[in-house]
Amino acid sequence: MTDLGCDLLLVDVHAATMRPGGVPYGAVRDAAIALRDGAIVYAGPRTGLPPGLTAATVLEGRGAWVTPGLIDCHTHLVYAGNRVDEYERRRLGVTYEQIAHEGGGIAAQSLPRMLSLAAEGVTTVEVKSGYGLDAVSELKQLRVARRLARDAGVDVRTTLLAAHALPPEFAGRAEDYIDLVCAQMIPAAVAAGLADAVDAYCETIGFTPAQAQRVFDAARAHGLPVKLHADQLSDMGGGAQAAAAGALSADHLEYTNEAGVAAMAAAGTVAVLLPGAFYTLRETKVPPIAALRAHCVPMAVSTDCNPGTSPAVSLLLMLNMACTLFRLTPEEALAGATVHAAGALGLGDRGTITVGAKADLACWDIAAPAELAYRLGGNPCVGVIRDGRVARWRT
Amino acid sequence: MTDLGCDLLLVDVHAATMRPGGVPYGAVRDAAIALRDGAIVYAGPRTGLPPGLTAATVLEGRGAWVTPGLIDCHTHLVYAGNRVDEYERRRLGVTYEQIAHEGGGIAAQSLPRMLSLAAEGVTTVEVKSGYGLDAVSELKQLRVARRLARDAGVDVRTTLLAAHALPPEFAGRAEDYIDLVCAQMIPAAVAAGLADAVDAYCETIGFTPAQAQRVFDAARAHGLPVKLHADQLSDMGGGAQAAAAGALSADHLEYTNEAGVAAMAAAGTVAVLLPGAFYTLRETKVPPIAALRAHCVPMAVSTDCNPGTSPAVSLLLMLNMACTLFRLTPEEALAGATVHAAGALGLGDRGTITVGAKADLACWDIAAPAELAYRLGGNPCVGVIRDGRVARWRT
Repeated sequence: MTDLGCDLLLVDVHAATMRPGGVPYGAVRDAAIALRDGAIVYAGPRTGLPPGLTAATVLEGRGAWVTPGLIDCHTHLVYAGNRVDEYERRRLGVTYEQIAHEGGGIAAQSLPRMLSLAAEGVTTVEVKSGYGLDAVSELKQLRVARRLARDAGVDVRTTLLAAHALPPEFAGRAEDYIDLVCAQMIPAAVAAGLADAVDAYCETIGFTPAQAQRVFDAARAHGLPVKLHADQLSDMGGGAQAAAAGALSADHLEYTNEAGVAAMAAAGTVAVLLPGAFYTLRETKVPPIAALRAHCVPMAVSTDCNPGTSPAVSLLLMLNMACTLFRLTPEEALAGATVHAAGALGLGDRGTITVGAKADLACWDIAAPAELAYRLGGNPCVGVIRDGRVARWRT
Repeated sequence: MTDLGCDLLLVDVHAATMRPGGVPYGAVRDAAIALRDGAIVYAGPRTGLPPGLTAATVLEGRGAWVTPGLIDCHTHLVYAGNRVDEYERRRLGVTYEQIAHEGGGIAAQSLPRMLSLAAEGVTTVEVKSGYGLDAVSELKQLRVARRLARDAGVDVRTTLLAAHALPPEFAGRAEDYIDLVCAQMIPAAVAAGLADAVDAYCETIGFTPAQAQRVFDAARAHGLPVKLHADQLSDMGGGAQAAAAGALSADHLEYTNEAGVAAMAAAGTVAVLLPGAFYTLRETKVPPIAALRAHCVPMAVSTDCNPGTSPAVSLLLMLNMACTLFRLTPEEALAGATVHAAGALGLGDRGTITVGAKADLACWDIAAPAELAYRLGGNPCVGVIRDGRVARWRT
């Protein structure tokens, strides 16, 4: 620390810092964490606090564990999956214009999902478009995602997934739709400053590798990083393609072969595991966890929150499913929702409790970090600090 | 209604009454539910309310759905699975006597689990003993369960499961332990008024059918109904044995054969399905759902909340798992946590929204009852009424 004052000092806690280095969970027992100007300025043993340190506020954790704020790095959270309410209100005389002005239902309906995640200590959420499939609707989805960030008090990263599905009006003309994605939708999202990354759904029932590549090339030309829905239902060579494109992440990966895994390792592409979709679809082919481990590919874990294949609004449950269904260790699972989830979003400023990192923290009434992956349901989150400010504390 | 006054009138709701009769969910749209003296005195279309009805309180549901209060009919919820905290406090100088006086940790540690269930609209919870394995400790577990009922505001039914596992001091002497269960523990539980039923764990790694039968006989001699952990890991003929004993329920049933299912149907024994244990143990043999359906055996769904094989504190998640893993319909799953869960506990006074039934209700911000089984995580419960009184309302 450059001087001896901080805004917030957290004591009587244990810290799962998730810093690499051989100590499980990067754990520091009887820790202290000092925050200033939205960043962490000290994180270590309480006994190592600089003498004379002053703090505007001191929080007593009463033996709770502190982790980095959780990061849900792959969601399709913004959708209006259920129009029953809107339907009824229109029958009651509310005009469609009124409903649209109120956010068209989509923001109101997405907010509870975002709040469910936030209640479990999630402080950063990635949200993809992909239900609009035209420039106006795709950008609207991303705009709603950004608005949810404010309403729910989480940091949102937006990903343009215009190449999610072929809209019916382009049936038989996938290349024409990809033309539109590349020539119009990506530039429009960039111009509006609404996309942090670009994603594509490469699958037998989605787009071809060549079409995904065109999307990647257009994204790169606009300076946007890319991600790929890869090898979920069949081996399309998605892992290798994502790696070759220098993608931030390749997601799903049930059918990825070892060459793809090796390529991801070399490229630094994060493997995003989505056990909620695996579970909901009753898949039996598990992602190549042993190969991912052997090649030291960072593994993230996410909800894939979407109305069809993973109606999941609990990241903690995904940690459990990653352990139960994919045989990750609880520590791997938690790394997957912190440091490696940050990697999957290209965010170097969060995901560990480290000096200089963004002061996003979650506080848990648990006896050991493994408990975060242990339960089916329930929520031991007792505090959230975001941007160095107390968002919630033992309420 | 005998007169035209009621304590509480619930309007602007839809009711999933769960009454049999061919209408899915026994649904009544635009319903009214009137409560008096802890019981339901009207439940039907709002237009059918008796003219001139007066109500001390009127609750507006704003289009929410109301179901019977949920019933979790098979749990091992009372345990001290984690002594880390106690360990640390003792290191800090708190005496063991002080800790024991405070409830020994067991009540304090079990309460959050009970509250997690209650938060999801659960109003009745069955709790088994089975971690004490001597008379004093088993009765203590049941006493703690009853105390939790007060602390958490739920109705608790207690089941003596002394025949859960063989305590180490009886190694090689299972018959001697069963002697103790029958001659001492069951009578002690009856004398203390602490047991509503008796259960036994019949399995290759548990007790034999003959030993379970001895427990059943002793329970019956004391006037207590029985239940059976049956055929979870192998076909022990548990379904048929439970039926022959007139058991309230046979639970797990992964390996139950069709003759057992037919016997359960004839005896009116409820099948309690426990998908959380199936999931956690990564079992592949699914209970005989088709046979249970064909023979019209009522199917209940429960958490099996326990520290080892099903650390589940969300009954809604179990509805999802019953649908996803066992292929129940959402309606079957909800019946399994209401009317048939009541049957598994021998409670004829609850589990449906019917005139004369106990006024335990849960209120949900959902567009259709199927949503209760749909999500992975999240909690749409916005109100709970227990014994005719508002326990929670849109908080």
